[in-house]
Amino acid sequence: MLYIIGLGLCDETDITVKGLEAIKSCEKVYLEAYTSILMVSKENLERFYGKELIIADREMVESQSDEILLNADSLNIAFLVVGDPFGATTHTDLVIRARELNIPVTVIHNASIMNAIGACGLQLYNFGQTISIPFFTDTWKPDSFYDRIKENRDLGLHTLCLLVKEQTIENLARGKKIYEPPRYMTINKAIQQLFEIEETRKQEIYTPESLAIGIVRLGSLTDQQIKVGTLNQLLTQDFGPPLHSLVIVGSRVHVLEIDFMRFFAVDKQVYNEIVKKDYDI
Amino acid sequence: MLYIIGLGLCDETDITVKGLEAIKSCEKVYLEAYTSILMVSKENLERFYGKELIIADREMVESQSDEILLNADSLNIAFLVVGDPFGATTHTDLVIRARELNIPVTVIHNASIMNAIGACGLQLYNFGQTISIPFFTDTWKPDSFYDRIKENRDLGLHTLCLLVKEQTIENLARGKKIYEPPRYMTINKAIQQLFEIEETRKQEIYTPESLAIGIVRLGSLTDQQIKVGTLNQLLTQDFGPPLHSLVIVGSRVHVLEIDFMRFFAVDKQVYNEIVKKDYDI
Repeated sequence: MLYIIGLGLCDETDITVKGLEAIKSCEKVYLEAYTSILMVSKENLERFYGKELIIADREMVESQSDEILLNADSLNIAFLVVGDPFGATTHTDLVIRARELNIPVTVIHNASIMNAIGACGLQLYNFGQTISIPFFTDTWKPDSFYDRIKENRDLGLHTLCLLVKEQTIENLARGKKIYEPPRYMTINKAIQQLFEIEETRKQEIYTPESLAIGIVRLGSLTDQQIKVGTLNQLLTQDFGPPLHSLVIVGSRVHVLEIDFMRFFAVDKQVYNEIVKKDYDI
Repeated sequence: MLYIIGLGLCDETDITVKGLEAIKSCEKVYLEAYTSILMVSKENLERFYGKELIIADREMVESQSDEILLNADSLNIAFLVVGDPFGATTHTDLVIRARELNIPVTVIHNASIMNAIGACGLQLYNFGQTISIPFFTDTWKPDSFYDRIKENRDLGLHTLCLLVKEQTIENLARGKKIYEPPRYMTINKAIQQLFEIEETRKQEIYTPESLAIGIVRLGSLTDQQIKVGTLNQLLTQDFGPPLHSLVIVGSRVHVLEIDFMRFFAVDKQVYNEIVKKDYDI
């Protein structure tokens, strides 16, 4: 049996009881470690699970999935994924490969940013499509997310912007796949890039005065932070270490949501003015 | 401290270790019981948690929230919610009230249909806004969800249709709030109503040949079912007991998603024809 198990948002105790029981039954436990970040060390996880973890890097998951699946027809193998197994990144490939090999697959779900984002007070019903904001370089500024934000905002919907972890590949020219340490996009950097794209595209999809929410370290009982303000206000806030996410608030909001967000406003007076001007509440 | 704890999708072992530890520290444990359905009995939960549960019905949560919050400034109180606390239904009100009373609130997240729906193989990125399909009566056929589906489909996005549990109120005229046993919308009923609305609105947002996914008892290790087919095919499938959900597949699909869904096709030949005709894959 291949168990694909979501670890949830933050630390070792975010796993479900069902997930923990499954891990304890497994001969081998892989930890998917390239698409996301858990706010806890591998050693802590190993101590808590009572199992040694094998780090599954991009290379292994993408091109050596048969190694992970080896003997999974007779033994229990776990593949651990931060958040939910089918959250921000799908592991579709691995499941399809397992099916081809007639290996039974069990998925154990958990929270991910895609549903826990409700903690900011906005109803999940009124979110449009989710986007990812990648790091720009001098020569590469992919901006298709701008069109997605436009589509959402035209309908009055909120946009969850995932701020990605990036592992760039060094030494590629020399045929060695050596990954640099990951960089994490901050809310500040993301807003700066949003402004840069608006400057080029000029469709006024959002402005420095648009209402937004910065959410950091979502799910941490001690360290989670939510800040509500204009994009301009959030641009200069210090949000601390990763993970950061950003929500651009759409026009479909209920008065209860406005009340909820006020609690997190970086400046209540500015918040009330924006709400009155843009939301007529 | 008020703990708002997500129970996840299915049974008592879907709670997180963190959530279980929090419950064990609580003096009183409320179970929110009107918006959703857990596929396990109250008694099983009580045995597993080692705590007595107090059922919080609609009446209590909406108008007697101060009773739930009583002494939460000095004691730990838990409020358990099926899925994620801010999933399909928000408990915004209770949190706002707690803040007004200066009661600290801790949210412990979990999986909900809003992220676990990724199990059907479609990327969560390409879902538009989520809708709820209510029961029609002879005289009351609210159809605003039709416009939401149109908005999603115009953008090529998938639509998650939540099929609601309904508790109607009897004896209201006599001033007694007595709730009838809940009715659960089936996928079959939802599709029948979708056809009925299309018949009236005639904008051809979807047709009997549109590709859709029926997901039932999501998260159950023994009993989960996913079936992929046209709306017409799914209309006559037997999906068994609740909970049912429906996804209307949009046009933005990747070949990997098509491969993934094929596994669940109720008729692979029909599936391949639809894919070729509508998705050019």
